[in-house]
Amino acid sequence: MRGFASDNYAGIHPEVLAALAVANDGHQVSYGDDVYTEHLQEVFRGHFGERTEAYPVFNGTGANVVGLQAMTRRWSAVICAATAHINVDEGGAPEKVAGLKLLSVPTPDGKLTTDLIDQQAWGWGDEHRAQPHIVSITQSTELGTLYTPAEIAAICAHAHERDMLVHLDGSRIANAAASLDLPLRAFTTDVGVDVLSFGGTKNGLMVGEAVVVLNPGAVTGVKYLRKGAMQLASKMRFVSAQLIALLEGDLWLRNARHANAMAARLADAVRPVPGVVITRPVQANAVFAILPTEVADRLRKRFRFYDWDAHTGEVRWMCAFDTTPGDVDAFAAALAEEMSG
Amino acid sequence: MRGFASDNYAGIHPEVLAALAVANDGHQVSYGDDVYTEHLQEVFRGHFGERTEAYPVFNGTGANVVGLQAMTRRWSAVICAATAHINVDEGGAPEKVAGLKLLSVPTPDGKLTTDLIDQQAWGWGDEHRAQPHIVSITQSTELGTLYTPAEIAAICAHAHERDMLVHLDGSRIANAAASLDLPLRAFTTDVGVDVLSFGGTKNGLMVGEAVVVLNPGAVTGVKYLRKGAMQLASKMRFVSAQLIALLEGDLWLRNARHANAMAARLADAVRPVPGVVITRPVQANAVFAILPTEVADRLRKRFRFYDWDAHTGEVRWMCAFDTTPGDVDAFAAALAEEMSG
Amino acid sequence: MRGFASDNYAGIHPEVLAALAVANDGHQVSYGDDVYTEHLQEVFRGHFGERTEAYPVFNGTGANVVGLQAMTRRWSAVICAATAHINVDEGGAPEKVAGLKLLSVPTPDGKLTTDLIDQQAWGWGDEHRAQPHIVSITQSTELGTLYTPAEIAAICAHAHERDMLVHLDGSRIANAAASLDLPLRAFTTDVGVDVLSFGGTKNGLMVGEAVVVLNPGAVTGVKYLRKGAMQLASKMRFVSAQLIALLEGDLWLRNARHANAMAARLADAVRPVPGVVITRPVQANAVFAILPTEVADRLRKRFRFYDWDAHTGEVRWMCAFDTTPGDVDAFAAALAEEMSG
Amino acid sequence: MRGFASDNYAGIHPEVLAALAVANDGHQVSYGDDVYTEHLQEVFRGHFGERTEAYPVFNGTGANVVGLQAMTRRWSAVICAATAHINVDEGGAPEKVAGLKLLSVPTPDGKLTTDLIDQQAWGWGDEHRAQPHIVSITQSTELGTLYTPAEIAAICAHAHERDMLVHLDGSRIANAAASLDLPLRAFTTDVGVDVLSFGGTKNGLMVGEAVVVLNPGAVTGVKYLRKGAMQLASKMRFVSAQLIALLEGDLWLRNARHANAMAARLADAVRPVPGVVITRPVQANAVFAILPTEVADRLRKRFRFYDWDAHTGEVRWMCAFDTTPGDVDAFAAALAEEMSG
Repeated sequence: MRGFASDNYAGIHPEVLAALAVANDGHQVSYGDDVYTEHLQEVFRGHFGERTEAYPVFNGTGANVVGLQAMTRRWSAVICAATAHINVDEGGAPEKVAGLKLLSVPTPDGKLTTDLIDQQAWGWGDEHRAQPHIVSITQSTELGTLYTPAEIAAICAHAHERDMLVHLDGSRIANAAASLDLPLRAFTTDVGVDVLSFGGTKNGLMVGEAVVVLNPGAVTGVKYLRKGAMQLASKMRFVSAQLIALLEGDLWLRNARHANAMAARLADAVRPVPGVVITRPVQANAVFAILPTEVADRLRKRFRFYDWDAHTGEVRWMCAFDTTPGDVDAFAAALAEEMSG
Repeated sequence: MRGFASDNYAGIHPEVLAALAVANDGHQVSYGDDVYTEHLQEVFRGHFGERTEAYPVFNGTGANVVGLQAMTRRWSAVICAATAHINVDEGGAPEKVAGLKLLSVPTPDGKLTTDLIDQQAWGWGDEHRAQPHIVSITQSTELGTLYTPAEIAAICAHAHERDMLVHLDGSRIANAAASLDLPLRAFTTDVGVDVLSFGGTKNGLMVGEAVVVLNPGAVTGVKYLRKGAMQLASKMRFVSAQLIALLEGDLWLRNARHANAMAARLADAVRPVPGVVITRPVQANAVFAILPTEVADRLRKRFRFYDWDAHTGEVRWMCAFDTTPGDVDAFAAALAEEMSG
Repeated sequence: MRGFASDNYAGIHPEVLAALAVANDGHQVSYGDDVYTEHLQEVFRGHFGERTEAYPVFNGTGANVVGLQAMTRRWSAVICAATAHINVDEGGAPEKVAGLKLLSVPTPDGKLTTDLIDQQAWGWGDEHRAQPHIVSITQSTELGTLYTPAEIAAICAHAHERDMLVHLDGSRIANAAASLDLPLRAFTTDVGVDVLSFGGTKNGLMVGEAVVVLNPGAVTGVKYLRKGAMQLASKMRFVSAQLIALLEGDLWLRNARHANAMAARLADAVRPVPGVVITRPVQANAVFAILPTEVADRLRKRFRFYDWDAHTGEVRWMCAFDTTPGDVDAFAAALAEEMSG
Repeated sequence: MRGFASDNYAGIHPEVLAALAVANDGHQVSYGDDVYTEHLQEVFRGHFGERTEAYPVFNGTGANVVGLQAMTRRWSAVICAATAHINVDEGGAPEKVAGLKLLSVPTPDGKLTTDLIDQQAWGWGDEHRAQPHIVSITQSTELGTLYTPAEIAAICAHAHERDMLVHLDGSRIANAAASLDLPLRAFTTDVGVDVLSFGGTKNGLMVGEAVVVLNPGAVTGVKYLRKGAMQLASKMRFVSAQLIALLEGDLWLRNARHANAMAARLADAVRPVPGVVITRPVQANAVFAILPTEVADRLRKRFRFYDWDAHTGEVRWMCAFDTTPGDVDAFAAALAEEMSG
């Protein structure tokens, strides 16, 4: 059964699978001293600038926890949106593995602002308070919304003035770039982001994310932290080869544009349906909506998707690189049918 | 450059790569609620018995740390051989992520015995001592040696009598089974092992290990611990499909037998060379030897391998599923040549 | 300079100091196997019931972190008020030492309710969410307010129905009992609280708190966790002797009643001053007020006190067992003087 | 019942108790901003040099764990003797709270040497190995032996050449100074020790140790780490006042000399007893001996003491500041009596 539950219900993009086969040739040094991982550095530098260092890891939680540890001391805290993946979807790994306190702030749209940051950015020098050393933002956000480059620049400037560093959870960074129609560096390196969790899995890889250091002065010990966080792949060439397949050409952009376009098509198709309310701006590959619970329940028997907020009845529909116009149209038709049923 | 540095320098077995392509069909629920992971349970139960529960993870350190946490409380300690991978090769992850103290014991051959265990198995009830709750053994060991089923049975009985549980690091468990010519359960489930780290990567997978619970009463919270340890794959179907490809037929055994045979061939070929001393019994896929440092240095320019102990000049030669008789013969010839050079 | 900054600016009550001298007689077994710690059990059972077990520790953060660990698993989360001491004043120790995620809820008055708890009490079984296993409340609260026994009973019932346990941070529990005019057990043991952090330091001890287990079935490994949290006193007799001096007679109650009475006197004295607004119900030994910033700044040169919220200008005035009517009257006079200045 | 079980069976030295009473005068700012803690800095600088910074804490485990964290990164390991208190008597707190791996080395006498250090001092740059960043030694050692200043100087030089820092567990540092007849700085600051855990409790305090930073460049974040490790006393003045009472005059030295003298007297008295073997050099306040198990068992009914090694029958007798010649003589007589019984 297909559906709109998550962009990680999709499989491996064929070009990525092909790259795995190509990389499966002979011996390679393990744990990252292979030619693919070496080449990957160049690929990442092409996108994010000459100082970039990329550390492939297994998954997004791993990327976040390794990156945040590399930027912090044992007594640090991280300011984030209440809806941030690190706050709500990582099983407490940032607290448990890294000992970090998350200082979360409610937001209307999943986006921090300098004002919202200031709700938690205080108390430096007071040892009773876990020290706010990091601002972590997500682009595109968990609510399918986008920061403009100017908004991220303002956050970075604000954080840096307060000796804080900026982490960007880029689990869906390609969707953001595609939607903004900007190079990846335009809203990361160029506006002051220090460290990035680069997401590949949701954009067509089998398994592969990376801790991407944009400001080498912001981190220390990434390679030790990656190992200690159990994110060091022995046959790393196969993670790197996937990331190369994604990033060396324009596969990352094609996949993201397609997923975004499918979300836009979906929003357009369901917006006219009476009784369905699109609740968030559709800026990347997610559509959020409120519809009657009984309709949602019936619809879910035909297409997979998740509740976002059981209290309000809001649901989330995600599009992936492999979502087809047919998927969207069938779903929209089914929704209209169930609504009128 | 090929060589004998590690069994994780090898790539993906073609049958495993093919399985990835087959699994890459349409949507699957993420995070393990997919049909492959479901089927994998059956496959593991076939090998290890009806009570078995298997939790796919990314790597061996992850499997060990998740399994050990599931068996312990916050104040537990783990008795292991000084040479155990958890003690020397995991960057301190058991201590850092799980807060576990390792009570390590020097051994002549990488193998614990009840007497060696008793060097550390004491102090229960005394809160000044991290409490010995687990005995962790490795099969085949980091020194390429094997426990007999009777030896493991004795360790399990000894541990259980003292209310300790037994963990087996099976990073190379297939090599052990192949060498012992026994089913996997004969030296695990059937002799009292409680939890197993099952290794797939070194035996032909791209990425894939599993926490295998043989005694469900010995663990709690495995699924939460896997997530908190950042070992939960979103597209888990592709990890499970690899493990199925390995374990459903006899690929695991073919690969392991082959690697073991290559090690035996290598030992046979180098043993007659004057000045080379094989230092350990060759019982699985590893050969340890002492040879003159300058010879090792010259040889390393032609074939990759690692020092095992820089003080003694002992080196380690690992064979993998893809090691060829030609690799072995060329290496042995080169060794003889360098020795006589 | 005296003042109203905190109840821990006060010293040791003379009766407690005298008890230290009495306990300083000859040898006692260290680490808690002394006659004072043994007798302390009886004293605590007298207050909290026959199943009570008390574990003396050094400070309140220690009591909270040990108690919470004893009630939780590695994947647990703790629901608490946003203003809870564990959330804002413990330097991230619950996260860092215990790996616990705190699920905090904004409250109007520092008190949780079943509705507020339900904002975070969900997601059991979903490994992406740190599992809510504990509700932690503070009595009297960090805002100087009180729960009624019925309110705590409702919280405990609500929590227990959901397989959660209840922790009570009783850093100022004596002030609560004095204000409610109830025995300590009336709003703890008798209404379902499982584990209590009993506070002695703020109520006249030099150093001494205790993890008090009211429901032994709710905890495991307290003694190991106390040691591992570095809260095990070698000369524990001197911590226990202080707690005995406080609790065996009515010193705890006399001290608390006095502090509460001083807070009431202070509130009465300043309430009529034009331009000063008492912002919270004065139910224990704290008075919160808003006054003009420049007045606060001048007043602070004469009496010590802290800002509570720099954004709103709210300040906190705490009374202790050693606050005198003269202290209060002098302060109120100074405040009136500065306001009219 | 008196005895020789531990120097923490003793009480509070009368001069220390008197100092508590003196410090119990009026209000003091909590958490260390009091006049006693300020003065304590001067006192410590007098002993250890002008760069010294002292952070009072509650107990020795706390001092060790705070100090070690301040000197390390999240991926660090600590080289120590197998008998070190941090390795065997802290319930795994260094691993659990600080995430540190201890690389322990068996020693003949509780003392590390540069050769022994080198057994574990390797592997820098290899992320598979927890990185050896610290050498931790104990003075006097857990076996009652002493390092000479030259021995410590050699260890410090060796460590610093390898970019490692040196921590000294000075739980019984006064006994060492008394026995060496040297100022405290002669074998710490002056020979290169970076951070010291200063022990007060065993030498006559009620509760009080300190993290003493001798090389400020070696640490970061001590105050945050102390809070996060739950070692920040609210009424810190009373810990500082004890340390001042000990260190401002010569109480520390008188107490230590006395305890050492009592150990020497004990050794002299029992050495001639046939069948009793003193097993370690008696250089501080501990005597280790082997005697027949049944004799030890009978003797223990009259005087308290602990087994050191149940396998060999070795026992430990500790002398404290309050051990009297009468205690020693009575014990020696009882021993002789039981031996001949």
